[in-house]
Amino acid sequence: MRWFFLIAAMLVPLAGQAAASPCLTRGTGDMGIIIERAAGSLQVVDTTAHSELFRVEGLGDLSHASAVYSRDARYAYIFGRDGGLSKVDLLCGTLVKRVVQGGNSIGGAISQDGRLIAVSNYEPGGVKVFSAESLELLADIPATRLPGGKGSKTVGLVDAPEQRFVFGLYDTGEIWIADLTDPKAPRLQRFKDIGRQPYDGLITPDGRYYIAGLFGEDGLALLDLWHPERGPSRILNHYGRGKKQLPVYKMPHLEGWAVAGDRAFLPAIGLHEILVVNRDGWQPAGRIQVHGQPVFVMARPDGRQIWVNFAFPNNDTIQVIDTETLKIIKTLKPGKGALHMEFTPRGEEVWISIRDLDQVKIYDTRTLEQTASLPADKPSGIFFTSRAHKTGL
Amino acid sequence: MRWFFLIAAMLVPLAGQAAASPCLTRGTGDMGIIIERAAGSLQVVDTTAHSELFRVEGLGDLSHASAVYSRDARYAYIFGRDGGLSKVDLLCGTLVKRVVQGGNSIGGAISQDGRLIAVSNYEPGGVKVFSAESLELLADIPATRLPGGKGSKTVGLVDAPEQRFVFGLYDTGEIWIADLTDPKAPRLQRFKDIGRQPYDGLITPDGRYYIAGLFGEDGLALLDLWHPERGPSRILNHYGRGKKQLPVYKMPHLEGWAVAGDRAFLPAIGLHEILVVNRDGWQPAGRIQVHGQPVFVMARPDGRQIWVNFAFPNNDTIQVIDTETLKIIKTLKPGKGALHMEFTPRGEEVWISIRDLDQVKIYDTRTLEQTASLPADKPSGIFFTSRAHKTGL
Repeated sequence: MRWFFLIAAMLVPLAGQAAASPCLTRGTGDMGIIIERAAGSLQVVDTTAHSELFRVEGLGDLSHASAVYSRDARYAYIFGRDGGLSKVDLLCGTLVKRVVQGGNSIGGAISQDGRLIAVSNYEPGGVKVFSAESLELLADIPATRLPGGKGSKTVGLVDAPEQRFVFGLYDTGEIWIADLTDPKAPRLQRFKDIGRQPYDGLITPDGRYYIAGLFGEDGLALLDLWHPERGPSRILNHYGRGKKQLPVYKMPHLEGWAVAGDRAFLPAIGLHEILVVNRDGWQPAGRIQVHGQPVFVMARPDGRQIWVNFAFPNNDTIQVIDTETLKIIKTLKPGKGALHMEFTPRGEEVWISIRDLDQVKIYDTRTLEQTASLPADKPSGIFFTSRAHKTGL
Repeated sequence: MRWFFLIAAMLVPLAGQAAASPCLTRGTGDMGIIIERAAGSLQVVDTTAHSELFRVEGLGDLSHASAVYSRDARYAYIFGRDGGLSKVDLLCGTLVKRVVQGGNSIGGAISQDGRLIAVSNYEPGGVKVFSAESLELLADIPATRLPGGKGSKTVGLVDAPEQRFVFGLYDTGEIWIADLTDPKAPRLQRFKDIGRQPYDGLITPDGRYYIAGLFGEDGLALLDLWHPERGPSRILNHYGRGKKQLPVYKMPHLEGWAVAGDRAFLPAIGLHEILVVNRDGWQPAGRIQVHGQPVFVMARPDGRQIWVNFAFPNNDTIQVIDTETLKIIKTLKPGKGALHMEFTPRGEEVWISIRDLDQVKIYDTRTLEQTASLPADKPSGIFFTSRAHKTGL
């Protein structure tokens, strides 16, 4: 009977371990998350099996939430509208840690080496930098103060090569580059008078050009990060918004950078148009008339198609554009509240959140037909782990 | 005592399981393999910790071995020179399966959807297609027969969007496109007279252009996969090899495709030169004199630097070229037998195999200084899991 107790004692930790960690041993390359904006939860999904693996709750206000991934593609960092920064373990389906770092967050980025998470805030303005491991605060970069003492809203935060972050200051019309090589002593380069009200930003996939969309005037600001000493320049001046402006139902997102060959595709603000730009010289190269005010303009990873969703009241529609002919080759009606799209890394599928149907629909990008769907509670952003390996996503 | 036996019986499978599978529960995004060519083994590595996780043996002849990854980034498929195709589990450090599929293999690819592995063979010529899951043979595509009855060597096999594979036929001067949408009935498009002796091929990162290097003449063959009906054309004709040819110590590899902005960088055959090409129109745009006959010409992921290694007797040297000025900014002497380079996905580091030192050296690509090293037994190819998400790698 002595053996019995010995063995029973051995069993306890084994059983305990199993109960405490129902974690998966699997590759993380084909995983992702779907933000469930109303419930403050997310689904961890398997993009090969088209299935849900876990649901993680308690993430706060997830309207407008975005996410980045750790370099091992195991952890997602979610930036909530309420200033919450949450670290989620995709293999265990658990919320590892959550900090409320600001009053009103507008997005974040992960450093090139994967060690730093930066978050930009509306309220108070500025950027905070955290340890990706512990979420400990490492650096606080306050924004330029406005006459009343408040900091400018910071927007369009992206990571750039060589351990830098780049962002815009909405109220003061600036672009800043922050070099976080030494997180305790960020080195800042400030560019003033870049244009009125930068509202969002993007970085080209190679990490060279930062482009800020301007809400306060008709054009965009371009900064060559290989040559910051040359300062920002203006592109597409008096081109995007046109003379007769429509009311803007929803600001387009610039993060959905769409590059195909030597051309880029950008959403016009307030118009039912996509702007086409030659990357060589950043000159206008055409406009494409579309079904509504574009929100996300995204290229299939091979650049052969552009997929576009639209602002209310046209958010039941997706259009697919051939990048060679600039023609619309398909108009899909997946359902009301088609909020976000994410391509599988090599582009054979696109997943689309249909908020009002509580569904994510999956399309084959070759046939343009729906092939599968997943239930989800008011889905919005979809983010796959291959983002871990990309600059600016 | 009845309980004792019951519990003891329960313990056996638990203990057995633990012993048989010391598998890791971790993200696979920061993993990779280092081929140990002489020993027929590989190391599974952690690119964050710069450490070895497992060594896997019994992989046969690994001289010239290459690898691709499953879409979940858990499994590596290794193509050995002896025709061996091995499937290795990175999380468990085990050889899952190995088949000897041909007499003399020269590389392979994984289909866009991750379900198919294609292997090209010198001996017998042709391409075999296997299930990525089971390594079961699904399709056998024999090459064009030569007068003696033998099939042409097949070379330069890559995956392309829409479930296609593209490859060259060395002896018969052809490029074939195989559409494997239905693996049981591959659809072939054959292009003849593309030039003499295509010896290797590459596909542009967007998956649009297939380029075959020609050993039998001075130029390359280009095929636009968006318009295969237009057939192949010739680029860099009478440009690459020059009038006075040097003996060729080692054929350059084309897979190390280097694109920076609107220019591409290709190794010249037999010359101490890198050829610069404008991607718009594929016209020559310059030459860069380098230290030896280039083997791999690889762009840092942001396209700002090109790293080059060289054939014997200059294989102790690596040169770094600034893509804007086309100047050599650094000449490194890491040691004899600098065979292969692999950038971390976002480019902050490059890992270089130094065969004769039994080491892999790790460089910071910003400072161009060595920061770490790993012991390895005659290391050659290095392949990181982020390749899972890329076309043509």
